[in-house]
Amino acid sequence: MTELAIGIDGGGTSCRAAVADRMGNVIGRGKAGPANILSNLENSLVNIVESARQALRDAGFENETVSTSTAVIGVAGANVGDYGKRIEKALPFRNREVVTDALISLQGALGDGDGIVGALGTGSVYNARRNGTLHGIGGWGSIVGDQASGARLGRDLLEKTLLSYDKVRPASPLTEKVMAEYGNDPERVVEFAHTARPTDFARYAPMVFEGAQAGDVTAIEIVKDAARAIGESLDALSWAECPSICLLGGLAKAYHPWLADRHKALLTEPKADALQGAVDLAVKLLRERQRGAA
Amino acid sequence: MTELAIGIDGGGTSCRAAVADRMGNVIGRGKAGPANILSNLENSLVNIVESARQALRDAGFENETVSTSTAVIGVAGANVGDYGKRIEKALPFRNREVVTDALISLQGALGDGDGIVGALGTGSVYNARRNGTLHGIGGWGSIVGDQASGARLGRDLLEKTLLSYDKVRPASPLTEKVMAEYGNDPERVVEFAHTARPTDFARYAPMVFEGAQAGDVTAIEIVKDAARAIGESLDALSWAECPSICLLGGLAKAYHPWLADRHKALLTEPKADALQGAVDLAVKLLRERQRGAA
Repeated sequence: MTELAIGIDGGGTSCRAAVADRMGNVIGRGKAGPANILSNLENSLVNIVESARQALRDAGFENETVSTSTAVIGVAGANVGDYGKRIEKALPFRNREVVTDALISLQGALGDGDGIVGALGTGSVYNARRNGTLHGIGGWGSIVGDQASGARLGRDLLEKTLLSYDKVRPASPLTEKVMAEYGNDPERVVEFAHTARPTDFARYAPMVFEGAQAGDVTAIEIVKDAARAIGESLDALSWAECPSICLLGGLAKAYHPWLADRHKALLTEPKADALQGAVDLAVKLLRERQRGAA
Repeated sequence: MTELAIGIDGGGTSCRAAVADRMGNVIGRGKAGPANILSNLENSLVNIVESARQALRDAGFENETVSTSTAVIGVAGANVGDYGKRIEKALPFRNREVVTDALISLQGALGDGDGIVGALGTGSVYNARRNGTLHGIGGWGSIVGDQASGARLGRDLLEKTLLSYDKVRPASPLTEKVMAEYGNDPERVVEFAHTARPTDFARYAPMVFEGAQAGDVTAIEIVKDAARAIGESLDALSWAECPSICLLGGLAKAYHPWLADRHKALLTEPKADALQGAVDLAVKLLRERQRGAA
């Protein structure tokens, strides 16, 4: 049995893999197509394995090494129904564990410590580890959730822009900029909104933060509402001895100045990314199995 | 030339028509399929004419009377691009005028007087007539507008239900009722929300109002937010001498107790419905043309 641990971050756009030795030194990396296990399980399995094979080849090993190595795969949906177990059964690794994307992300950010991780990008979702136990909230999508997501910032901006067009709320430089983008035609704003995906709305997020920093009243209102939503979620997850809060994702930095002082005081930089979190978990699993076999 | 005036209310579910004599007495009624002029212009034209023919037959006239009568057609989208003019050209009535659904609705509710009409149903839209001039706001759809619509009440309820499931906000009898409806599975709430049309969300509106009346804190928060949005829109449209505010639509009555006193003081019952508004305008047009021809 080779002493190889493979961490895999199976995401909606690609699967990334890294292979490490027993000491945790990364010696090869690989990448393949996406893993959307809930919508395309078979294809996801193929891409997960392919990313691992590439990482092994990158480290100078044969394809067959897959069947003697130990892998931890983090993927969204692993906790839905029996999807996690089904993937574990189907994968060709000697030892394998399928966990949520949230767990590898938290493991990367916090290492083995307790704390809270908030992911603020196109969506927004929060996970805490307290005395080793994981608990997550949010991440329900921008239609009825993800209050601090880029998608909601963008949707809110368009809503407030239409209110200012109707003179229900005062206009601001930002709402005027948006109206100008749509040729001052509210019908075009509506048309965009009715076909926009979360990523389309989220494209406005940087503009909202820039506006807020420049003192734009509409932008400030939107960012304050979203930051309040982050605060409420952090409070819901937090406990008296919570040692750290780590914010990840494209909007994390932009939110920092808008957070409450009690949360700012606990902010820490992520130790590593989700892929490294998967590698750490795979190395742990390898050592456990070796101890078990000894 | 016969002295017949036909009012037509062209709606998204059906076209209704009423034919009146020169004095405004309704002597026949008809109904046909929907008029969605922006998505299906040809079919809309057929249904508009068919509803008029039925009303004429109901009043004992021949089909050909269409070409000698005077009609006012109210239909959503009449003010978009050149749609109104295109319909006017294509219709076989001797005299015809195509106006917005908002105008016939306001004419029905207020008669010839000034005032504000708010339509509160699956959507929310406001129109004012001041010194005879029409001005409308809202009605941009529930994704980025329609803050007081049934669709928004329902969407807000689901959002707050998920927040209470995550223990970010306190639960209430209403949020617990909703969670129970989805087998206490938040994924099912999200699944519903991601395929729900405005009418699907709006089915929760009566439940929200019942909850608010019974003192449910979540329901009260949702209704108060929506009532504040109505207030802001009424303030944006109102003027010092505004004589009356008339609220129409399935949610109008339910909102009454939640409005600000300054708006409650101006509330009036609608004089008549949109179809009657179209008939009134058609009778006026008939008299004008007769005067013009005399």
